[in-house]
Amino acid sequence: MDKILRINMSNLSVSSEEVPASWAQLGGRALTSTIVSAEVPPSCHPLGPNNKLVFAHGMLSGTTAVNTNRLSAGAKSPLTGGIKESSAGGTTAQMLAKLGIKALIIEGAPAQDAWYRIHIDKSGARIQEEKELVGKGNFAVFDAMGEQVGKKCGCLSIGHAGEFKMTGANISVRDKDGKIRSHGRGGLGAVMGSKKVKLISIDDTGCKGITLADPEKFRTAAKIFSTSIVNQPGIAHGMKPFGTAMLINAINEAGALPAYNFRNGQYPNHEKVSGETMRETILARGGEPSHGCAPGCAIQCSQVYVDEDKQFVTSGLEYETISLLGPGCDIDNLDQIAAADRLMDDIGVDSIEMSGAIAVAMEAGILKFGDAAGVLRLLKEEVALGTPLGRVIGCGAGTTGTVYGVTRVATVKNQAIPAYDPRPIKGIGITYATSPMGADHTAGYAIGPTLAGAIDGHKKDGQVELSRHLQFAAAAVDSFGICLFADMAISGDPQCVPALVDMLNARSGENKTAEDYIPKLGSYVLKIEHEFNCAAGLTSQQDRLPDFFSAEELPPHNLAWDFTGQEIDAFWNF
Amino acid sequence: MDKILRINMSNLSVSSEEVPASWAQLGGRALTSTIVSAEVPPSCHPLGPNNKLVFAHGMLSGTTAVNTNRLSAGAKSPLTGGIKESSAGGTTAQMLAKLGIKALIIEGAPAQDAWYRIHIDKSGARIQEEKELVGKGNFAVFDAMGEQVGKKCGCLSIGHAGEFKMTGANISVRDKDGKIRSHGRGGLGAVMGSKKVKLISIDDTGCKGITLADPEKFRTAAKIFSTSIVNQPGIAHGMKPFGTAMLINAINEAGALPAYNFRNGQYPNHEKVSGETMRETILARGGEPSHGCAPGCAIQCSQVYVDEDKQFVTSGLEYETISLLGPGCDIDNLDQIAAADRLMDDIGVDSIEMSGAIAVAMEAGILKFGDAAGVLRLLKEEVALGTPLGRVIGCGAGTTGTVYGVTRVATVKNQAIPAYDPRPIKGIGITYATSPMGADHTAGYAIGPTLAGAIDGHKKDGQVELSRHLQFAAAAVDSFGICLFADMAISGDPQCVPALVDMLNARSGENKTAEDYIPKLGSYVLKIEHEFNCAAGLTSQQDRLPDFFSAEELPPHNLAWDFTGQEIDAFWNF
Repeated sequence: MDKILRINMSNLSVSSEEVPASWAQLGGRALTSTIVSAEVPPSCHPLGPNNKLVFAHGMLSGTTAVNTNRLSAGAKSPLTGGIKESSAGGTTAQMLAKLGIKALIIEGAPAQDAWYRIHIDKSGARIQEEKELVGKGNFAVFDAMGEQVGKKCGCLSIGHAGEFKMTGANISVRDKDGKIRSHGRGGLGAVMGSKKVKLISIDDTGCKGITLADPEKFRTAAKIFSTSIVNQPGIAHGMKPFGTAMLINAINEAGALPAYNFRNGQYPNHEKVSGETMRETILARGGEPSHGCAPGCAIQCSQVYVDEDKQFVTSGLEYETISLLGPGCDIDNLDQIAAADRLMDDIGVDSIEMSGAIAVAMEAGILKFGDAAGVLRLLKEEVALGTPLGRVIGCGAGTTGTVYGVTRVATVKNQAIPAYDPRPIKGIGITYATSPMGADHTAGYAIGPTLAGAIDGHKKDGQVELSRHLQFAAAAVDSFGICLFADMAISGDPQCVPALVDMLNARSGENKTAEDYIPKLGSYVLKIEHEFNCAAGLTSQQDRLPDFFSAEELPPHNLAWDFTGQEIDAFWNF
Repeated sequence: MDKILRINMSNLSVSSEEVPASWAQLGGRALTSTIVSAEVPPSCHPLGPNNKLVFAHGMLSGTTAVNTNRLSAGAKSPLTGGIKESSAGGTTAQMLAKLGIKALIIEGAPAQDAWYRIHIDKSGARIQEEKELVGKGNFAVFDAMGEQVGKKCGCLSIGHAGEFKMTGANISVRDKDGKIRSHGRGGLGAVMGSKKVKLISIDDTGCKGITLADPEKFRTAAKIFSTSIVNQPGIAHGMKPFGTAMLINAINEAGALPAYNFRNGQYPNHEKVSGETMRETILARGGEPSHGCAPGCAIQCSQVYVDEDKQFVTSGLEYETISLLGPGCDIDNLDQIAAADRLMDDIGVDSIEMSGAIAVAMEAGILKFGDAAGVLRLLKEEVALGTPLGRVIGCGAGTTGTVYGVTRVATVKNQAIPAYDPRPIKGIGITYATSPMGADHTAGYAIGPTLAGAIDGHKKDGQVELSRHLQFAAAAVDSFGICLFADMAISGDPQCVPALVDMLNARSGENKTAEDYIPKLGSYVLKIEHEFNCAAGLTSQQDRLPDFFSAEELPPHNLAWDFTGQEIDAFWNF
């Protein structure tokens, strides 16, 4: 029987609870947001003892189906002041599912000034004081766990940023090769830091694994699902060889890059930081251009980036990081961007939030645009060390803007806007504005349909409806534990949705429809998240893009953001 | 005829407009809040070109009546995100009134990277580039204006903090002796800085002065008003000899000091920083224990604090500063507090916000509680120089808390809570929570009635009604241009309200009642301010005190803050 594992850091106690009936059929984001809504007072300080940090694997995690092992982390966000769910790959979702831990809830905060490690295995969870790894980066933590617990050790940890409770701090997840994935957004690493948990190590040795209500039906459906993903042209010819960085050239072509802190939709040196260039570079050096971030990944959009000496630099160098730190900050050198990505992983900061903060720091004159060496120095000598400037940057774009009096700050709900300018791809602007998460491209990825020509990104028509449809789907997919890129298969292949429904029913023993699993579940998730945010004091005024997107037309298409507040607010009419 | 002087910093133009009929009978806060409500988009960035900085003298300013020369400054606040009015003494209100400038509106922002001075005299206003005084503190600016324009020059200026656009920056006002008074709260200095206005110099030589509709009636009423103020025992035996610092012992007695960042309502060394000690110190050194901050002051609650060598240190060393920086930060040396006050005046930062930020910095371990030398170093070498740490502190208690992950941050709407703990004086807590200004003791000073025994501060009964009554009165008094301490006379002497009404009618030629002038005008002001805040995205969730006031009982009375949200929200039922 699955259970809820509850860890109270106020009295350092562990308890195991039955899963309430209303939570039994939920997973991932649907479950973290349900638990946060039910148990966290919306008005509480996000770094105080009344906030809770919740981890939940997806509804399909731990099964043999491909691309189903995403882990959701949830809490009240210290960055946005609203509810937060951030998902990541790695091995942890699969392990928690196999251990029968439906959700892990970390609550309270210790009175004493000490740091702790939580270890979870088949016998339960133990809390022990942690001294050795305090002050260390995520690589050191993961290496240590690989040695202490074993190569396959699952691990969730915070780096320096989480210890400093920076609102840009992420939670890192160990992947199958000991590399770093991240619950990147919303400062959840600061919440973990506020509970004085440096790391959670997981060992699933000897666990029973999950049970399927109908194994045969599951197997059949899982095969269709897998084939559909593998055969998607966008995956086979785009994501797999080039990673998400395949988007650099595509988004440049669409005129929606965030070049020079959202001053131009195109970047003259885009080829130097493109997915194609990255692939050539990696191949020439003997790295791996395709790599999976989680067990059972059929997409392999990650990669192992190595330096000129063939030494490992980073894994999972994403479009967002390359685009915001590259064109966004006028840095056209992939090696320097990769080096920054490695540092951000080690320090444990969200690379989107940091890139946004660095662009604001450049606006403030702290660094010049294009100063890659300055960026590396800033990360290594300021953020990692928690100097005053490092703490400011580590708290993200919004705080950096406040502290330096900069008005050109691309955030929504104080969360940095990802690497797609919303002026020529208006659907993503609606997602940025309305998502309860703050500016988040994954919450309703309108880029896909726009690039595919299903909608005109320059026009307002249909964008609110598109974003709503995509946000329902994303909330559902985040609950299944499926990665967003598998979503391309779901939406592109008519066979795929029935297979997905069969897998979900075969896992749970229910007999639900596609309508139940996608729009109904998605709209449920969005509604409870929106209600939490309203109770926390966020209003429709926070569902807005910054002034400058309306005031300035973006080259080359010379479009401004032109949605009225009323038009945006129509998003919530469901 | 009075006029509106409008200065557009985008195109460096000056225009003079007739006063709209609906503004004609307003002044001070009623007028700044009316103009901000009418002309500033509530969703705009407070430091962007769409915000406006508005100055308006009181309805009675420029007359011969005592204590009527307060100047109101208004804008959307970069600190709170809501509407702001902050009033100050000095000579500027009187000068603007005499020059017939009913309101001065500064809008737009220059594209070029230059600083400007605005000079106003009887011929109008001129904008000129300012180079010499940029980077200088307020004392240097005031001294320079005294030399360039004349000893009686009126001046509004920003120090380093306003140039850096710190959200704790104030606007300084020159007083009759060339000393510094401040529009302290809400970061209005950052708004002035965002418009690139370093200073506004005013010369009222040769102006016509104001006209009274009924000079004889005015004279009679003004005499009653003046006598009433001078005869108030609290003024004659408290404010005048000891300044507002007379409250140190009284608030210690009430158990409501903010000692050790609001951990104890009493401070063992309170006698060392009391008003009585300050008076003795000043008298022994040959300073002035009583001094007026504005022309026609009958109260003289300011003082000229001198050091052991009889050299001027600061003027207007207030209870708030002494209490928050003294007991609040465990500093029991008046000379060091006075030195910090001088630095804050020169840098141009709100001493309440800075003291709150310094207490948070002490929580973060940047300084130890009690480290007065460290405080002086922080102000001089960090805030004044705009170092990263200085900018964080200069942005106030809330930002310091965010950057350092501190949860014990005494703010409402991100504005630092003044020096009265709301747990044993509950009425002031209702004012902190509900005032559209953010935490502000002057917005509804429930301390007076509580100390006078008119209400039991430990009990909730009647506190919402008391705060509402006081907030109406404060909004009215802030509109008349009368200083808050004269309000003690108005509420304590039955002859005083009729005299005030007579003065207002004799000034304007109207025939209004006390009901019109106080609760009606006050409720009008509060309503438009509240509406602005709602449109800017503030909700009842921002009408709340920080968690720790509810979670912790305050010694010695061991009381917690126990108002429910619903009870607080009843404030707005009018």
